[in-house]
Amino acid sequence: MTKQVKENPAEIVRDGSFIRQQNRFTSVFGEGPGELAVQAGRYRLIWSAACPWAHRAVIVRRLLGLEDAIGLGTVDPIRPNLPHTDWAFTLDEGGVDPVLGIRYLSEAYLKADPGYTGRPTVPAIVEIESGKVVNNDYFRLTNHLETTWAPLHKEEAPNLYPEHLRGEIDTLNDTIFHEVNNGVYKAGFARSQEAYEKAYTALFHRLDELEKHLSTQRYLFGDALTDSDVRLYTTLVRFDAAYYTAFRCNRQRLADYAHLWAYARDLYQTPGFGDTTDFEAIKKHYHLSALIAAEGSNPYRILPKGPDLSVWNEPHGRGQGKES
Amino acid sequence: MTKQVKENPAEIVRDGSFIRQQNRFTSVFGEGPGELAVQAGRYRLIWSAACPWAHRAVIVRRLLGLEDAIGLGTVDPIRPNLPHTDWAFTLDEGGVDPVLGIRYLSEAYLKADPGYTGRPTVPAIVEIESGKVVNNDYFRLTNHLETTWAPLHKEEAPNLYPEHLRGEIDTLNDTIFHEVNNGVYKAGFARSQEAYEKAYTALFHRLDELEKHLSTQRYLFGDALTDSDVRLYTTLVRFDAAYYTAFRCNRQRLADYAHLWAYARDLYQTPGFGDTTDFEAIKKHYHLSALIAAEGSNPYRILPKGPDLSVWNEPHGRGQGKES
Repeated sequence: MTKQVKENPAEIVRDGSFIRQQNRFTSVFGEGPGELAVQAGRYRLIWSAACPWAHRAVIVRRLLGLEDAIGLGTVDPIRPNLPHTDWAFTLDEGGVDPVLGIRYLSEAYLKADPGYTGRPTVPAIVEIESGKVVNNDYFRLTNHLETTWAPLHKEEAPNLYPEHLRGEIDTLNDTIFHEVNNGVYKAGFARSQEAYEKAYTALFHRLDELEKHLSTQRYLFGDALTDSDVRLYTTLVRFDAAYYTAFRCNRQRLADYAHLWAYARDLYQTPGFGDTTDFEAIKKHYHLSALIAAEGSNPYRILPKGPDLSVWNEPHGRGQGKES
Repeated sequence: MTKQVKENPAEIVRDGSFIRQQNRFTSVFGEGPGELAVQAGRYRLIWSAACPWAHRAVIVRRLLGLEDAIGLGTVDPIRPNLPHTDWAFTLDEGGVDPVLGIRYLSEAYLKADPGYTGRPTVPAIVEIESGKVVNNDYFRLTNHLETTWAPLHKEEAPNLYPEHLRGEIDTLNDTIFHEVNNGVYKAGFARSQEAYEKAYTALFHRLDELEKHLSTQRYLFGDALTDSDVRLYTTLVRFDAAYYTAFRCNRQRLADYAHLWAYARDLYQTPGFGDTTDFEAIKKHYHLSALIAAEGSNPYRILPKGPDLSVWNEPHGRGQGKES
């Protein structure tokens, strides 16, 4: 769901800040009127391995054992050079998704709404029979998979969204969204020094807080994985390879945080996380994407705020007979 | 002496590699015919605090106590938006160098050679009376200051270029030039993935070797500072703030090398080094310069080679009752 600034000036406001577009398709799953039926084989989840918002849903699908119930289609991390923003199925034979029979994700958006003018985004849940996008709610999709999709979970699937914690999880998810997940985008897409610095400051303040929080417990809510861990992970795993440089989030790297870094490695080494993490796709998208290459050079003259250079004054211990 | 690629296509060769232009003014100092007289108050050294090649000369001038003998003029780290490449005296009152009375460094180059078509570069030694550039030999200038300028050195000035070591110093300086000082530029200005990776590999190979070398001795040639230390320092001090991100030299930071990092801090804390290091100018130049902003976005689709992502597989030590 990385955005294309140039074609969506509506997402940039007067002070140079980036305001992410709203999701268009937010129907929930269930048996009520207008709700989407929970049914194995009915939908296809479209993702890009580069995209942190889509990555969430793919991790949760794997953790909960929903691979057989919901198929997966993968778009190219580098977007095609078209007059409009799109994701393409160029990784598939013939450049066509073998199930949906489409070349571009926009086709499924336009099938669902011929007047759709937003960016086609991943994750997108496409109903296979109609070929229509029925849900692109990156913010709530994992929660749907964790709750209404429970009848199709594997045996002993973890409870990522336990009822007694939902209020707290939602609150933390909101904070992580504004300051971390979307915070890196707000820094990277800012068009004023002020908007950039505001996002940068909030981002590292929050990471500092999370560092403290994770110094005394394994996961964000204690000893068990929750939905919040998935959300934090998808930004952390992209941090040093992409955001530190491409989005100027360079006060320090993830690897410079003792606890956050060990926490991220812990998750990476857990099935469902590392095995769905494609660093090559991540690097290609953030460093080579035509959108980012065109827009990301630095036309708005943003001065990086980091790294911290005060460390140059720390004792070096050399010249005392024993070299450090 | 940071270069302007766009207006100097002659510096880019067929395979996408960057070949730095030759210096035009390389007269030596001395009393022979055609040599430049060594005389206090006769010349002005023009530098940009951003530029590693000019920074060398300024450090050596300070170490040897030549401040009174050779005046210093400072150009703006951000180059002006002109049809030609230039350095400007916009830091001075009225935008004019108070001694030379010029606005742009190109004026002194054209006074010396009205047919000069290269980039005006720093360091430049300008003869004050004639207003002409008489030496812009960034490669040899420090050696001139260390040898023929000896009569004007301060008492107890260090011997940065002792005769018995000159052969070895020259050899090491050559290596450091090709693989480190200019190596970061070859990586940052490459226009092909291959040229970039070649420079990147040579750079980090050399830094690895220097790391080993500096694990057993304080300076490159033992217990005493030499010209080689000055040359290595000017690249190291710019590494994490500029080259790591802007030039994609991102296998690891200087701060990730135990010995090189302590060595660089040792020098930084030595009078002549840190007090001539202007991180603000360095950051502005490499991240904001119109030249780099225009050219540096990534139009040639160079994929960064680093950082090393294998560390994600290292043991994390979490989940065993005692959090790491």
